[in-house]
Amino acid sequence: MVKIYGDGQSGNCYKIKLLASLLDIPHEWVPMDILGGDTRTEAFLTLNPAGQIPVLQLDDDRVLTESNAILNYLADGSSYLPMDAFARAMVLQWQFFEQYSHEPCIAVARFISKYLGMPEERRAEYAAKQEGGHRALRVMERQLEQTPFLCGAAMTIADISLYAYTHVAHEGGFELAGYPAIGRWLDRIAGMRGYVGMV
Amino acid sequence: MVKIYGDGQSGNCYKIKLLASLLDIPHEWVPMDILGGDTRTEAFLTLNPAGQIPVLQLDDDRVLTESNAILNYLADGSSYLPMDAFARAMVLQWQFFEQYSHEPCIAVARFISKYLGMPEERRAEYAAKQEGGHRALRVMERQLEQTPFLCGAAMTIADISLYAYTHVAHEGGFELAGYPAIGRWLDRIAGMRGYVGMV
Repeated sequence: MVKIYGDGQSGNCYKIKLLASLLDIPHEWVPMDILGGDTRTEAFLTLNPAGQIPVLQLDDDRVLTESNAILNYLADGSSYLPMDAFARAMVLQWQFFEQYSHEPCIAVARFISKYLGMPEERRAEYAAKQEGGHRALRVMERQLEQTPFLCGAAMTIADISLYAYTHVAHEGGFELAGYPAIGRWLDRIAGMRGYVGMV
Repeated sequence: MVKIYGDGQSGNCYKIKLLASLLDIPHEWVPMDILGGDTRTEAFLTLNPAGQIPVLQLDDDRVLTESNAILNYLADGSSYLPMDAFARAMVLQWQFFEQYSHEPCIAVARFISKYLGMPEERRAEYAAKQEGGHRALRVMERQLEQTPFLCGAAMTIADISLYAYTHVAHEGGFELAGYPAIGRWLDRIAGMRGYVGMV
């Protein structure tokens, strides 16, 4: 049975938890506490020298890191990852957008506010993240005004990647009331058979 | 013939130029000048509302953005992208690492130094990027001490993704002399049949 090392508070880890639940993938969840230092132990750094979670460990001990790479591996052959080359590339386009333009703003603002308790020395950084976060949300809103899911009519792992931190964006100070298409999309995902929440 | 919108100075655009040359893909290169404002015109924002390059436009006008998504699309079926699901996921692991942990440090430091001329108000940011950049280089070095290319014995698009900004990392202040395995890997790539330089 595959092992998934993850922290329930992390949106990147939640992506894997959500896909595993939607696809009913048998797995052992190995709970990690980032703030408690679990990702900085020698044992964990042997598993993943980059010291990040989530980590997927296969039965034969092969290891895969990076949440979106893990999603692509686990969803291969399922309805959440199309077979057509262009459709797959569109899924990747949204996932790279997530890691480059969405997560570094929305997840980091949430981390500063929710987990660090908004320390004085990071207030300027928090404020700076708001603009980039709203820019990313506008890109999503524009797409979701046209299609029910990011890549069209069907839900894919691109939606899972962007759902993870968008559905808790308010914890990073992002008011979603101005994004009605995103709001309907969040409801659509939460209503999927097999859906599981973050904590 | 596909169109590729790119700026010769941008490592993200160079990734596509390099793959197109290695695979001899017929294409029209549409030159863009980021600093000159070409990515902020109304016409370009219609093509890509995110205002970023590179952009791939197919014959039927479908558009794909995000350099690493474009690489996956163009390399599909070639030797630069394996067919096996786990091997493909490993390629993606490195590409997500590149966009999250490498590019935001090394490419941004290079941009501040080379293109902005190191303005006073960004010196602190430049200095902060050095630590993260070296952390990323150490992760690459550790892998390249074990295998000739990032995913094993054969070159893949993961190598192209990381080559783009690593081979010009010195322009961002990163001395590569302390990374001998990276040095040999850079030479290996520059020696590939069909290789083309950045400018």
